[in-house]
Amino acid sequence: MDQKGILIVVSGFAGTGKGTIMKRLLQKYADNYALSVSMTTRAPRPGEQEGVEYFFTDREAFEKKIAEGGLIEYASYCGNYYGTPREYVKSQMEAGKDVILEIEVQGALQVKEKYPETVLMFVVPPSARTLYERIRGRGTETDEVISARMHRAVEECEYIPGYDYLLVNDDLETCVEQMHHIISSEKMSVARNVAFIEEISSELQEL
Amino acid sequence: MDQKGILIVVSGFAGTGKGTIMKRLLQKYADNYALSVSMTTRAPRPGEQEGVEYFFTDREAFEKKIAEGGLIEYASYCGNYYGTPREYVKSQMEAGKDVILEIEVQGALQVKEKYPETVLMFVVPPSARTLYERIRGRGTETDEVISARMHRAVEECEYIPGYDYLLVNDDLETCVEQMHHIISSEKMSVARNVAFIEEISSELQEL
Repeated sequence: MDQKGILIVVSGFAGTGKGTIMKRLLQKYADNYALSVSMTTRAPRPGEQEGVEYFFTDREAFEKKIAEGGLIEYASYCGNYYGTPREYVKSQMEAGKDVILEIEVQGALQVKEKYPETVLMFVVPPSARTLYERIRGRGTETDEVISARMHRAVEECEYIPGYDYLLVNDDLETCVEQMHHIISSEKMSVARNVAFIEEISSELQEL
Repeated sequence: MDQKGILIVVSGFAGTGKGTIMKRLLQKYADNYALSVSMTTRAPRPGEQEGVEYFFTDREAFEKKIAEGGLIEYASYCGNYYGTPREYVKSQMEAGKDVILEIEVQGALQVKEKYPETVLMFVVPPSARTLYERIRGRGTETDEVISARMHRAVEECEYIPGYDYLLVNDDLETCVEQMHHIISSEKMSVARNVAFIEEISSELQEL
């Protein structure tokens, strides 16, 4: 059942710990997965590095990339562009890696529409209260930002029915294993193994 | 994300080792799963026990059960009836167990039609050649029976596209783990967690 890599989208409310989950998943299963790095026009936050968290660029360059068809999805969020450069995703999938896009809801549904075989996962906290406390607990955000984030989470809920799986990030290691198992299971779906089924069927007829 | 048990169907060519997989899965995860015992009009084979491999009955009693609606699926195969009594499945699911039906292709698609949320898995050998050797290797079957089994396998291939997952039984322990992971992953599907999504969404709005 050899096959090329598959495309995976991971979204979730800000403050749900997606970044930490991704880091741990990539660390544990470095041979299986590649994390796509998004391009953005937002300014780097302290500590963020070019090509690690994002490729940082300006509006003009971003819009040129859109026009060239060089992004597999893009969205505007809080006044900035975010998008996924096509080239890296393509080359990693061809090399047999499952490529994970950590993107927000609008982009996620764009990807699903263009590539219906993409697996979409949405990460939620164990409860709404946990989310509120995590966002507030960072201590780096103003009340206005906290309120905007919570409001955004409510909006994002509307998009969850378009996803395939819901992951509850209660315990990091459990969540990482669940994500790995979902992806492994998806690779065993009948739809992804049509060629193998045809092969075994024609071999059976020859015996 | 507490929920009642889900319904799982496992099919596969005769000689693929489904029985051994089921036994090991139930042994490893006794708290999670319950295996439904089918009812049949076929005569017991040496060593088969009433209520373990099957509930053995006659045509008249079987047809009465059909008429009463007491079977969630049934099929005729090699001149005998095989069916799944409803009562046991229902009570185990209500108790939170995932119930596994090890049934053939016709019955499987009946279940999927009646209960679309059922997870259907088809177990195949690593190759057609392996299947042939496993069937022949039992040493208990005549050439005629071997040929009929192989012919049946070809027919069954036509039904695989109606299944959700394809499992290759190359190594028993791997296959058992894969089955467990598929079921666990399915329980995280968005479709199975609508109530939880609504709950977190309304909680977010209240904060």
